[in-house]
Amino acid sequence: MAVGSALAITVPATADDGLGDYRDRFEPLPHFPPIPADNSLTPEKVELGNMLFFEPRISSSGVISCATCHNPALGWADRIPRATGHDGQIGERNTPTVLNSGFLGSQFWDGREPDLEGQALGPIEADVEMAMDLETALERLNDFTLYQTKFAEAYPDDADPINANNLAHALASFQRTLNTPNSPFDRYLHGDQNALDQQEKDGMVAFVDNGCIACHSGPAMTDSNFHRIQVPGSSDVGRFEVTGDEADMYKFRTPTLRNVAVTYPYMNNGATETLEESVAIMGKEMLGRDFEEQTIADITAFLHTLTGEMPDFDVPALP
Amino acid sequence: MAVGSALAITVPATADDGLGDYRDRFEPLPHFPPIPADNSLTPEKVELGNMLFFEPRISSSGVISCATCHNPALGWADRIPRATGHDGQIGERNTPTVLNSGFLGSQFWDGREPDLEGQALGPIEADVEMAMDLETALERLNDFTLYQTKFAEAYPDDADPINANNLAHALASFQRTLNTPNSPFDRYLHGDQNALDQQEKDGMVAFVDNGCIACHSGPAMTDSNFHRIQVPGSSDVGRFEVTGDEADMYKFRTPTLRNVAVTYPYMNNGATETLEESVAIMGKEMLGRDFEEQTIADITAFLHTLTGEMPDFDVPALP
Repeated sequence: MAVGSALAITVPATADDGLGDYRDRFEPLPHFPPIPADNSLTPEKVELGNMLFFEPRISSSGVISCATCHNPALGWADRIPRATGHDGQIGERNTPTVLNSGFLGSQFWDGREPDLEGQALGPIEADVEMAMDLETALERLNDFTLYQTKFAEAYPDDADPINANNLAHALASFQRTLNTPNSPFDRYLHGDQNALDQQEKDGMVAFVDNGCIACHSGPAMTDSNFHRIQVPGSSDVGRFEVTGDEADMYKFRTPTLRNVAVTYPYMNNGATETLEESVAIMGKEMLGRDFEEQTIADITAFLHTLTGEMPDFDVPALP
Repeated sequence: MAVGSALAITVPATADDGLGDYRDRFEPLPHFPPIPADNSLTPEKVELGNMLFFEPRISSSGVISCATCHNPALGWADRIPRATGHDGQIGERNTPTVLNSGFLGSQFWDGREPDLEGQALGPIEADVEMAMDLETALERLNDFTLYQTKFAEAYPDDADPINANNLAHALASFQRTLNTPNSPFDRYLHGDQNALDQQEKDGMVAFVDNGCIACHSGPAMTDSNFHRIQVPGSSDVGRFEVTGDEADMYKFRTPTLRNVAVTYPYMNNGATETLEESVAIMGKEMLGRDFEEQTIADITAFLHTLTGEMPDFDVPALP
């Protein structure tokens, strides 16, 4: 490592705030998540996925698209406790944001799909969401010459490119572009020590010292692991539904904290509206601690620094 | 008027196609509709109206906004026969596009409101649309400091700016910006005689010669008047519901033809999917003519030239 005068050239001009040991516990959010080898990220797939994400004709009613619940105006989620889908039915769980979802180690609250390709078709087919038969969805897309063209461009080696696999891969590709780098906290981690004010830094310290970081770690601030929690009003057995293993009863995947300030309400059932209330509950349920008011205020201030730059996308002109 | 060599300077370089008498029957679409004296078009009202247009919290379910049925991805309409609203209920009529709606002499299929200010609150309160109590909608908006700020900026003279009148005026202001000038036909009317090909010009001629222009006149290609029509499958009494006058039985306001190619399906009940079918029905029902195949193809080609430039808008970041 460089020392002495050589080092002086590389440090930022601002005085060090002495919190390097804390900063080292975190990772800034990259501009892109890992791209799987079997789904290269091409502009053609992203453009097609963007169209499909806003496409209501792949729901049985013809009026619900991915963007209905993952609404770009609402932090790419829906800001209601539990998702409302086909015919006004209300689902069991809170809609997770799709922002930065490519950074997650598994998908859905219960992690029942390993990746975005596995996740993409679930809401289309779910009775309480888009309630659509997949074959009918593909037939509807095939009725439009524009989709015939766009699928052929995205999958030039496929003789019959409008199929379920390609639909899922295109949606996953688009979602991998919905990332929010350059939050104040990212700028802080990248060296701008003025990007956070003192209370926000106090919150970062409290976040580490109290152990929040044990589960909320890594670039998306989730370990992508499953932890047992029962929040007010929830009898949801969580991961147990997937594995049937008693050890997974009431376990949910740690949610990302990226953009948490704009993705309320919180918890698997949307039970809490405010970050303050959520921080208090997490302290009690997960860490066995009754946080002081000041600690809650500081951690909340810190969480607000995790809101990044919202991604570019087009409202497509659908056929 | 200028003559001789002075005139030669002002005519376009291309040869005249000899259809001036036909062109003179039409009006190009202006960039903005008339602005009412009691609702000046300010950037603050437009920005607020843009937010409110995408705001689902002013529906009782919290998931339906104006943009749900007036979807910018779908020609600012919904591309289904009849509107689907609260709890999946299906309404009686086809969703009209909001594009260029400021040019219409009255609002709704039955003209029951004279202007956009009168129209704006209807869908919020309608049981089969957003199903929302207006007082509750205003209370929900008032819960957000961002809306308190934006209403105050849009209505600086009001002590209590979050009210129904201002909500309607802001939505109307935003809608008056959703115009689609510079269609191929507008460019043709403005002097570019190559903006239409021969079939499209033949369609324009057929449109005039067959009398379509009797009702589809003016910049939005509607006389904003009410005409009796019963399309397949419709028992809707139309304007009679508004006036109670037997003479208004089955009458509907002439719909705009601007962007008609991207605002299918057609008719008050969305009975027809294609322009060809719609042109044939209109010929028979309104003009008592059985159009030849060629005439239908020509008029359809002409109607495709009425698709203009889609308006700029933001997907707002809602609070």
